[in-house]
Amino acid sequence: MEDSPARSPRPVGLTSMVAASQVLGLAVIILMGAWMGQYRGGIAWESETLQFNVHPLCMVIGMVFLQGDALLVYRVFRNESKRSSKILHGLLHALALVLALVGLVAVFQSHQRQGIPDMYSLHSWCGVAAVGCYFIQWLLGLGLFLFPGASLPLRSRYKAQHVFFGVFLLLLSLATALLGILELLLFKIRDGYSNFVSEGVLANILGLLLVAFGAVMGYILTRDEWRRPPLAEELALSMDFKNLTEDESPVSPH
Amino acid sequence: MEDSPARSPRPVGLTSMVAASQVLGLAVIILMGAWMGQYRGGIAWESETLQFNVHPLCMVIGMVFLQGDALLVYRVFRNESKRSSKILHGLLHALALVLALVGLVAVFQSHQRQGIPDMYSLHSWCGVAAVGCYFIQWLLGLGLFLFPGASLPLRSRYKAQHVFFGVFLLLLSLATALLGILELLLFKIRDGYSNFVSEGVLANILGLLLVAFGAVMGYILTRDEWRRPPLAEELALSMDFKNLTEDESPVSPH
Repeated sequence: MEDSPARSPRPVGLTSMVAASQVLGLAVIILMGAWMGQYRGGIAWESETLQFNVHPLCMVIGMVFLQGDALLVYRVFRNESKRSSKILHGLLHALALVLALVGLVAVFQSHQRQGIPDMYSLHSWCGVAAVGCYFIQWLLGLGLFLFPGASLPLRSRYKAQHVFFGVFLLLLSLATALLGILELLLFKIRDGYSNFVSEGVLANILGLLLVAFGAVMGYILTRDEWRRPPLAEELALSMDFKNLTEDESPVSPH
Repeated sequence: MEDSPARSPRPVGLTSMVAASQVLGLAVIILMGAWMGQYRGGIAWESETLQFNVHPLCMVIGMVFLQGDALLVYRVFRNESKRSSKILHGLLHALALVLALVGLVAVFQSHQRQGIPDMYSLHSWCGVAAVGCYFIQWLLGLGLFLFPGASLPLRSRYKAQHVFFGVFLLLLSLATALLGILELLLFKIRDGYSNFVSEGVLANILGLLLVAFGAVMGYILTRDEWRRPPLAEELALSMDFKNLTEDESPVSPH
């Protein structure tokens, strides 16, 4: 039952787009590390000034790379059981949430140590909205899709919303990252920035890579033909369910 | 031929979501106007300092509201001929491009007058990428979908890319608007911003409204069941085409 005999082939183009997303995601992390390491003095949790630098690095690893990869699980693992894919999807999101939490503690603690006010900027408003909704979305996913309590009609109705808000939260996280980059640059190198100093150019390129990452992820996630097809046993289950609810609105089998 | 006798009903929920998108889009324009009028001294093309204020207003009217509405044309006008919808779609995008051009002239001229350097910030990089790609996308749409020269297989192959990049460019425009709001706030009211002065709070709310506008637009544009169904005569045409190209990859009729 774990593996269907009729294996679904990987669609043409999907592999290269997934590879591109991973290259872009890793490039984002490396460039963020280079920015913090080369221009912002590196990272140290116990340092008054360097603790802040944990924030952008944790956020791009968690809320960009891992969040993005969690969304790709169903596209990449096409022939594994749905349950295994769900567990991996939930675990990657959980890891992203842990990193986001570390990143948030870093910024709030470093602000407190330096007497910088919190939560006034558009970056902070978008960021708290993104992480808060991300946590709620994770809890709802866990409760409705992984634990066995929820009824099939409820799952089926929530699924479309879960998928939409999943992509929305990734895009909101990317927009928040762009705002964070610009905010940091305007606070740290305002005059140099307008003179095209290398730190500003590097951070701008990092921003464009985030945009490209979002474009590639969005492309992968919106191709209907790249969706994970249901395995034979899932299709049978879904057909039973469809027969039971024939008088309701049609339900997609995957 | 202009109107099919079998009219397709408007799907449940679409009307209220389109209404929500219009309310949010108008709220964005009104709040931007209030920001420029109440806190930034108003708008005047011939003024050295007030010419800049034309930029954010033109950009949200053109690259946010009109660009968004152009994407909704096929969802809203479900029973009009495809050609009428295409012309309206192209005209709204053209109007958005004209406003974007006026907005760009305003910012470059006002920078020149005040000796402020151009094109160094992440906002400017994203903005020029968005407007440049938007113009290219418009030209391609005009050449391939509105002029009769392009072959049906070419149109059909390009259509999915055109739709994807259309949504991508709207989202990139929204992200650019968020960056612009934050940049203006950090240049104009850096100290007051961290003290939660009303201008900063208003501009942050404007940013959240832009995020909500993007969410509602994304929701409308990604609901499969809300797509414009092909009219009877279009379906017939499409079936002829499908028969002609049966040995190629399957082509969606709408």
